[in-house]
Amino acid sequence: MAAPPGLDESLLQTISGPRDLRLLPAAHLGALAREIREFLIAKVMARGGHLGSNLGMVEITIALHRVFHSPEDTLLFDTGHQAYVHKLLTGRRADFDSLRAHGGLSGYPSREESPHDHIDNSHASTALAYADGIAKARRLKGEESRAVVAVVGDGALTGGLAWESLNNLSDGESRPVVIVLNDNGRSYAPTHGGCARNLGTLLENLGFVYLGPVDGHDIAAVERALRTARTLPSPSVVHCKTRKGYGYRPAELDLGEHMHAIPASDPRTGKPLSAGGQTWTHVFSERLCALGEARPDLVAITAAMAGPTGLEAFGRRFPGRMFDVGIAEQHAMVSAAGLALEGFHPVVAVYATFLNRAFDQVLLDVAMQRLPITIVLDRAGITGPDGPSHHGMWDLAILSAVPGLRVAAPRDVRRLRELLDEAVAVDGPTALRFPKAGAGAELAAVERSEGLDVLWSTGDDVLLVAVGATAEACVEAAATLAAEGVGVRVVDPRWVLPVAPGLVGAAAAHHLVVTVEDGVVTGGVGAAIAQACAGGTRVRQLGLPPAFIPHGSRERLLADAGLTGSGIAHAVRKELAR
Amino acid sequence: MAAPPGLDESLLQTISGPRDLRLLPAAHLGALAREIREFLIAKVMARGGHLGSNLGMVEITIALHRVFHSPEDTLLFDTGHQAYVHKLLTGRRADFDSLRAHGGLSGYPSREESPHDHIDNSHASTALAYADGIAKARRLKGEESRAVVAVVGDGALTGGLAWESLNNLSDGESRPVVIVLNDNGRSYAPTHGGCARNLGTLLENLGFVYLGPVDGHDIAAVERALRTARTLPSPSVVHCKTRKGYGYRPAELDLGEHMHAIPASDPRTGKPLSAGGQTWTHVFSERLCALGEARPDLVAITAAMAGPTGLEAFGRRFPGRMFDVGIAEQHAMVSAAGLALEGFHPVVAVYATFLNRAFDQVLLDVAMQRLPITIVLDRAGITGPDGPSHHGMWDLAILSAVPGLRVAAPRDVRRLRELLDEAVAVDGPTALRFPKAGAGAELAAVERSEGLDVLWSTGDDVLLVAVGATAEACVEAAATLAAEGVGVRVVDPRWVLPVAPGLVGAAAAHHLVVTVEDGVVTGGVGAAIAQACAGGTRVRQLGLPPAFIPHGSRERLLADAGLTGSGIAHAVRKELAR
Repeated sequence: MAAPPGLDESLLQTISGPRDLRLLPAAHLGALAREIREFLIAKVMARGGHLGSNLGMVEITIALHRVFHSPEDTLLFDTGHQAYVHKLLTGRRADFDSLRAHGGLSGYPSREESPHDHIDNSHASTALAYADGIAKARRLKGEESRAVVAVVGDGALTGGLAWESLNNLSDGESRPVVIVLNDNGRSYAPTHGGCARNLGTLLENLGFVYLGPVDGHDIAAVERALRTARTLPSPSVVHCKTRKGYGYRPAELDLGEHMHAIPASDPRTGKPLSAGGQTWTHVFSERLCALGEARPDLVAITAAMAGPTGLEAFGRRFPGRMFDVGIAEQHAMVSAAGLALEGFHPVVAVYATFLNRAFDQVLLDVAMQRLPITIVLDRAGITGPDGPSHHGMWDLAILSAVPGLRVAAPRDVRRLRELLDEAVAVDGPTALRFPKAGAGAELAAVERSEGLDVLWSTGDDVLLVAVGATAEACVEAAATLAAEGVGVRVVDPRWVLPVAPGLVGAAAAHHLVVTVEDGVVTGGVGAAIAQACAGGTRVRQLGLPPAFIPHGSRERLLADAGLTGSGIAHAVRKELAR
Repeated sequence: MAAPPGLDESLLQTISGPRDLRLLPAAHLGALAREIREFLIAKVMARGGHLGSNLGMVEITIALHRVFHSPEDTLLFDTGHQAYVHKLLTGRRADFDSLRAHGGLSGYPSREESPHDHIDNSHASTALAYADGIAKARRLKGEESRAVVAVVGDGALTGGLAWESLNNLSDGESRPVVIVLNDNGRSYAPTHGGCARNLGTLLENLGFVYLGPVDGHDIAAVERALRTARTLPSPSVVHCKTRKGYGYRPAELDLGEHMHAIPASDPRTGKPLSAGGQTWTHVFSERLCALGEARPDLVAITAAMAGPTGLEAFGRRFPGRMFDVGIAEQHAMVSAAGLALEGFHPVVAVYATFLNRAFDQVLLDVAMQRLPITIVLDRAGITGPDGPSHHGMWDLAILSAVPGLRVAAPRDVRRLRELLDEAVAVDGPTALRFPKAGAGAELAAVERSEGLDVLWSTGDDVLLVAVGATAEACVEAAATLAAEGVGVRVVDPRWVLPVAPGLVGAAAAHHLVVTVEDGVVTGGVGAAIAQACAGGTRVRQLGLPPAFIPHGSRERLLADAGLTGSGIAHAVRKELAR
């Protein structure tokens, strides 16, 4: 069905907002849906972004905007990445040329962008809680005629927060929230668990009025169901069956992921424009498989992200030893604790940003019981186009407060292999963090001293402590400074938390210590090092600012934060001049 | 039914472990249950602890230990506070004299205490995830004949983690976990939400074999259901209806809380032995009500703890403006965000330790959107007999990483009133933390300078920065040090995060700064102050050690951590002598 991009967009061009859409004769909606699909394919292929889920949302979004009057009525999308069609139909067509670029259109709902976006949401499973809060507010204000609609993927329902919200929405106090269940059978990976089987009945038992199932690609049918739901005085569910990637052959044929999120690609073939090359994730994936051969006690756990975290290969190699728990980071950690209590060594691989969802469990269920579990944090540091919620910049700050947890930050993929080996050999909790980036060059140590890898050593004016992938920039800074006559030593502690005694010793031998990390600077590794040095040596901490950093390229955002070679050199100079 | 304690305990004395219980003729079990109840009443009344829920668990626990063979079979209790009878029947009768005392019996399951305790758990809703992990492990090891049983309260099912686990347990891969649903209609407060209405059908729809409902106080009936469950190859639910406080008149008559957790009390009347007096919670509760009069936009949210957090009064005064969301801290924060987006100012009151459950939501749903929400953290700092999981010692560390969030720590109840007034006037996210303690004396400022309350000022050798309730000990330390000729200034910044510019200025005017906080010292307020001072002044940070601190009295544990007047004075002396 998909035609090449750049064709006639005449219908779409007439839609500058939901009102235009409501005035469009129903007979034209099919053609509009086709145009939207062509538009999405062209724009997302050109810039990268979430494709499969948005292709599946075309008809539902059209129907929503014809039945409800945004922004007086509130439309929420969960997860937030399925809001592209909504953006397109609410006056943001032109902005798709800057999709996910610095200063450009966000890949998620954004209140700053449009009055049609009521929340900024991207982590899964939040929309029902927002809907509950908004509906409670509307009742208190006597504004119940303003509808609250939450579009929720079946995947988002595997997250516990969604359940907490379903339980509250069904408390019998009849707030008329409309839940549109976008059921494509997937939560990135195929949706895991028992809830998916009987979703309709389950929700009915909770007390929701159940409408459906409806073919989510039949605009008229979805409209009818939504019009019924809108009249109800109590919460309802419109159950729409959709197909991820619908209407675009390469996405429909991509059975693994249905082109969930793609880099810039060729729209005819659906293949990425650049070759890609080896990433940190690949290296982790291969090494874990190798370890799994020798260690039958190694098991792996993913929260619906087996592909992107590299665990898929482990699952194929060792069927039965890889567990997908759904979008459920809390369960991932505690079930890992259960496995560890029985003698296994679980490796829980999640994106660094999603670790936030399981802090309590890491603290009390993993660390307090001193269980041998290795938490692998992919996409740590600046991640780029997904924006503030997806930068992996909080992990070091929150993990520094967890007693007995050891955290490693490899500076290159060779160290990733080594540190993974070391981590799974520890009889206690460990974490390992690495960036979303190409594998890059190896950064050899000139010597190892007191447990530290020394990466540069031309004097003792300043000790640069490199955390993980910032090592390359630190060595660059050292070269610049050395050329200016500053004596520099660069060390990589490899295990960054808790602070190694060897590092405290090394710090004492310098006039100035500068720590460099690609995490939020408040409460991170640098702060821990400063604390361990107890005021003995001046410790200046560089890192990401305590702010929500927008979307943009990794290079640009790191430069903005001063975490390049020249940025670090500049900071050192300034500090030495104090 | 309850008789005074100290009567004949002959049956109970014959039970030194589950084997003895299994050998006991069924005809004697009723008498045993009575003895257990009398024992519990006497011991918990004497020492304080969780009473109501354990009185409701007597018969279920007897039946569990007759049908399953602990510790080969695994019995898990969720929440962990309903494990007293289990402890009593597994050889720990004598230890009840030291219940929740320093070095004594824990109020929760404890692996260190007994091989019959498989996990250390106290925060709600974790047991099903442990059960899933343990069952997965048993299958991999070919040990599926060892049963895994999780006793779960209906309250614990309102927490999202429990849903994540139900979804995983019902994934069709048939791990034979037995869920014993202890349905007393309560999650501290009456269980909130739609799930409670149709629990049985809901679980059946998920794919669990449903057995019941069973009278949870009929040992034979519970045994029969458990024996059936034990033979099943797939997960099952034994639904037991129980009454909280069953068999003890004062607890049954206490309709509000059914004597959930009690201080040392008179067993005949059920009344606390000491009068209690005004607490920080009372002061917060009263002030919030007063504020609610003037501010119709103020709403309050509790996660099943309206009584203990002091929100109950607000709910009575302003019906419709207080929301109990169940044991669901994530939903509490995000639904607060929804209310805030619609123009309300929500006050979310939780115990400091439970904030850990909602870190991601505080960060992305509250702070990232700069929403006017006040998070009130009761039981901050050392809490005492509930042990490591319940000390409110992580909040400052994790909140220091949240951009744009302002955190206040009142030093006394007068400041609590003032700072609450200020917090709800801020058009952005705020948090307020205070201890579990009596209201205590007011601590007047000698002056206010650069936004800081100066509590003591006799020189500039050392600047003591007091965080919240540590102020009293700081002033004590100052008096001691001043008598020794040390020039001391004590300041209370009131708003402790982010670090006030005035504090950085004050720090620069001293040779030494010592910060004092009753939170974990790594990544806390002291670390933030040290960072803000950027190495200009030596900043020594005192606080709780990065460790899991056991149960014991607040006074004793604070003294152990050096957070008394003499402890602080000692640390200052040592630092000055460096």
